[in-house]
Amino acid sequence: MDKLHIVKIGGGLLSDEKLMASALSSFHALVGHKILIHGGGKQANELCEKLGIQPNMHNGRRITDDATLDIAVMVYAGLANKKVVSKLQQFGTNAIGLSGADANVIRATKRPVQDIDYGWAGDIKSVDVNSLKNILSIGLSPVFCAITHNKKGQLLNTNADTIAAALAGALAAEYQVHLHYCFEHRGLLKDINDENSMIPTIRITEIDELHNDGIISDGMLPKLNNAAVALQNGVHVVTIENPEAVHDEQASKTNLIR
Amino acid sequence: MDKLHIVKIGGGLLSDEKLMASALSSFHALVGHKILIHGGGKQANELCEKLGIQPNMHNGRRITDDATLDIAVMVYAGLANKKVVSKLQQFGTNAIGLSGADANVIRATKRPVQDIDYGWAGDIKSVDVNSLKNILSIGLSPVFCAITHNKKGQLLNTNADTIAAALAGALAAEYQVHLHYCFEHRGLLKDINDENSMIPTIRITEIDELHNDGIISDGMLPKLNNAAVALQNGVHVVTIENPEAVHDEQASKTNLIR
Repeated sequence: MDKLHIVKIGGGLLSDEKLMASALSSFHALVGHKILIHGGGKQANELCEKLGIQPNMHNGRRITDDATLDIAVMVYAGLANKKVVSKLQQFGTNAIGLSGADANVIRATKRPVQDIDYGWAGDIKSVDVNSLKNILSIGLSPVFCAITHNKKGQLLNTNADTIAAALAGALAAEYQVHLHYCFEHRGLLKDINDENSMIPTIRITEIDELHNDGIISDGMLPKLNNAAVALQNGVHVVTIENPEAVHDEQASKTNLIR
Repeated sequence: MDKLHIVKIGGGLLSDEKLMASALSSFHALVGHKILIHGGGKQANELCEKLGIQPNMHNGRRITDDATLDIAVMVYAGLANKKVVSKLQQFGTNAIGLSGADANVIRATKRPVQDIDYGWAGDIKSVDVNSLKNILSIGLSPVFCAITHNKKGQLLNTNADTIAAALAGALAAEYQVHLHYCFEHRGLLKDINDENSMIPTIRITEIDELHNDGIISDGMLPKLNNAAVALQNGVHVVTIENPEAVHDEQASKTNLIR
């Protein structure tokens, strides 16, 4: 089985030229098949502000009305995605920017309205593994933004962490997948102020306890729960780390294990 | 040699759901390899206006400063491109949205400053024919927006008509290329108010004369000059027509011939 690296980076990086270049240079250094997924929420909020549109959030998830969807598509699939692609092309990685609509790779459905109507938020329904395999087979490195579609002409806003886990889970039958969740620290810290307090290994059964103890933050919890599902779906390795460490197997990082 | 249709549609269509659906349904009906190129200038101007940025034009070409480039990338590569892709996916065409940076398909250089500094305007330097052939070979239909890159990490704004002609010319050695320039009329009209005054055939040697006679407008002239170069580069057929006619060889349209 070929190896496949799936790397999720946050959108915060993309506002800082230096951080972005360093993260993308590390992604470029990964050998073999690789997929990048990026956020862009911070830039989307900035554009909302410039346009006088108030971002509408509920439990850390965006409520996506018509105007907010247009902004998400412009920022995620346009500005953020193409900046990342052109930078990777400069480094020599043959990147191709994709939304879930492109090559019909990720099909989603509008999240059902229960207590909250999340608007044009998409829950992933299926990943077209053959389509992705074809794109990887011609030597391209896909760069995904957090936009999907419903195959009925509607674009949808889907959490980038969830996309990363869904791609990893779907591709685990075809590749030996290493899923990298990147954030600003070296790994998961016992004490947020001490990089030396990194936890090298976490069992997925410990996630709830670590959350109750305040070591896993509310923001990190859905990321880890996604990652746990990915591991259960056959993903080979899941690590939580700094983007600069993705190409370095010897670097210290947090390993999530079954 | 396989046939390849290259279809350029204006951005004006994309503001009108009905016109867009009709144009894309006609593109969907084309059999075999096909590439779509779209504009988006009208929507970009609308976003400029909302953001209080004055569009800066010289001889019908946009002067692209930093803020205008960001807007072009957001609108062309983001909003316009993904709307077209998701609509084509709905119809069943396996579309993939691309800028020239994606898969390094179109490399450009910043237009040299002479009388005017056009800012981040890109003149096309090379088309990666193998990259495009690979994408077509896995059954995908590329949808290009009017953004290119310089392979040094800089995105550039490039005229969509020019992209269409450059792709057609570059692919003419590999495919039997039919280049379709679409606009609101059935073809080139002798009298702009009379659709029945359409000219069925124009020789490229007649372009200047027809321009002097006012039959070819200033806006249409660069389109036809691009098309003439494409024909000289071995493109098989160039037609000027309504987007609804692209799949219909029997429809009346203007043929440009050597």
